[in-house]
Amino acid sequence: MTRFRLTVEFDGRPFMGWQRQDHGPSVQQAIEEAVFAVSGEAVSLQAAGRTDAGVHGLAMAAHVDVEKPFAPFRLMEAINAKVRPHPIAILDCAEVPADWHARFSCTGRRYVYRIVNRRAPLALEAGRAWRIAAPLDAEAMHAAAQQLVGLHDFTTFRSVHCQSASAVKSLDRLAVRRVGDAIEVEAAARSFLHHQVRSMVGCLALVGQGKWSAADLRAALEARDRAALGHNAPPDGLYFVGADYPEA
Amino acid sequence: MTRFRLTVEFDGRPFMGWQRQDHGPSVQQAIEEAVFAVSGEAVSLQAAGRTDAGVHGLAMAAHVDVEKPFAPFRLMEAINAKVRPHPIAILDCAEVPADWHARFSCTGRRYVYRIVNRRAPLALEAGRAWRIAAPLDAEAMHAAAQQLVGLHDFTTFRSVHCQSASAVKSLDRLAVRRVGDAIEVEAAARSFLHHQVRSMVGCLALVGQGKWSAADLRAALEARDRAALGHNAPPDGLYFVGADYPEA
Repeated sequence: MTRFRLTVEFDGRPFMGWQRQDHGPSVQQAIEEAVFAVSGEAVSLQAAGRTDAGVHGLAMAAHVDVEKPFAPFRLMEAINAKVRPHPIAILDCAEVPADWHARFSCTGRRYVYRIVNRRAPLALEAGRAWRIAAPLDAEAMHAAAQQLVGLHDFTTFRSVHCQSASAVKSLDRLAVRRVGDAIEVEAAARSFLHHQVRSMVGCLALVGQGKWSAADLRAALEARDRAALGHNAPPDGLYFVGADYPEA
Repeated sequence: MTRFRLTVEFDGRPFMGWQRQDHGPSVQQAIEEAVFAVSGEAVSLQAAGRTDAGVHGLAMAAHVDVEKPFAPFRLMEAINAKVRPHPIAILDCAEVPADWHARFSCTGRRYVYRIVNRRAPLALEAGRAWRIAAPLDAEAMHAAAQQLVGLHDFTTFRSVHCQSASAVKSLDRLAVRRVGDAIEVEAAARSFLHHQVRSMVGCLALVGQGKWSAADLRAALEARDRAALGHNAPPDGLYFVGADYPEA
């Protein structure tokens, strides 16, 4: 048996999310079926994160155990051939030790949230960004965001469906910058709560529109109450951009 | 009657091209039908360029004459509401003089061609870029491209269906640069021949792979013969990015 690390790009639009679901297509199921088509083995794919329906991946990390011998490059090529026409691509495949785990070995997760700040609807980025028509002040958003960095109880920014044992998490980075008519929010942490990035971005958008002050954001955090959440951003603009692991 | 200039973003994938066709959907038809739904007028939309099937637009310039009075912003909002669910968005709408013409007043057209240079198929950019698996030397492509800049007979880089009176055109800019795993080619000219950008990019890709030397590209240009074309790039990676007009 060999454990392979897969780096996965996917367009989240047609999927119910990363994780296998009874009621619709998932990225996990599509890749597991492709591996089955390649090796004849019913495998279980493990991933660094479980993205929601409509959330995209630029470089999700995952692993799979395969009995049949494969050169990593050949396995990657074979999965890519079989996973079509799903909008999923294996960007990299490498052998890893049997104790390497995409989820449990992961020491850092990084997301980007993309807002397009314009009046017109999205043609080229429909389903791939959050359009906000009202002008956003990216500098005010960035300044307010720094209050969320560090160790906090993020109950306010946590879905009621979150299964994490604790809402206390350390947020390493939350950076907001304007790039033309887009606003990009980068978030990095060892781990995130369910909906945490979308909930933080939703509230930062209120700050950007001047509806909330930095103090309002601070008060929402300190409320430790989901009811204090100003807004949960849609999945369209969220991208899982990378997972970090200790050097082997 | 008022003439309005429209700035149009569109995803070219579902269309047979910009121009109205008998055999399939076009960007022009979708916008003309939206204007009809808004004003009850059967209008004829004129554009700076006629993009092919599958080619995208970031800011196509067009104009339309409307009898019914509209504030430009209201007309833009109304067209955007009616043009759904087509992946088309009017980014800007402005009144222009009756002698302003999106095609005939245009003094410059700009395109970008996007190549993703990697082994894996495209998931997030399927239909939106040209994937080339073999490593590309962007610097060699850029250096060779400079031979095409200036006044030349571009017969080699012209579709057999091209309706232009002359194949002699002045190419103002053809710049190639690497951005991560992408290669972006910028092209600017007063006007282009049919398939000119795609044909130039197709040959530059041969240079980038080392299959053609800069001298081979020069020889193809000097052959003034479509048969000397090395490769015509697919429409997927081509974006009309802007049209230039003299200051009013």
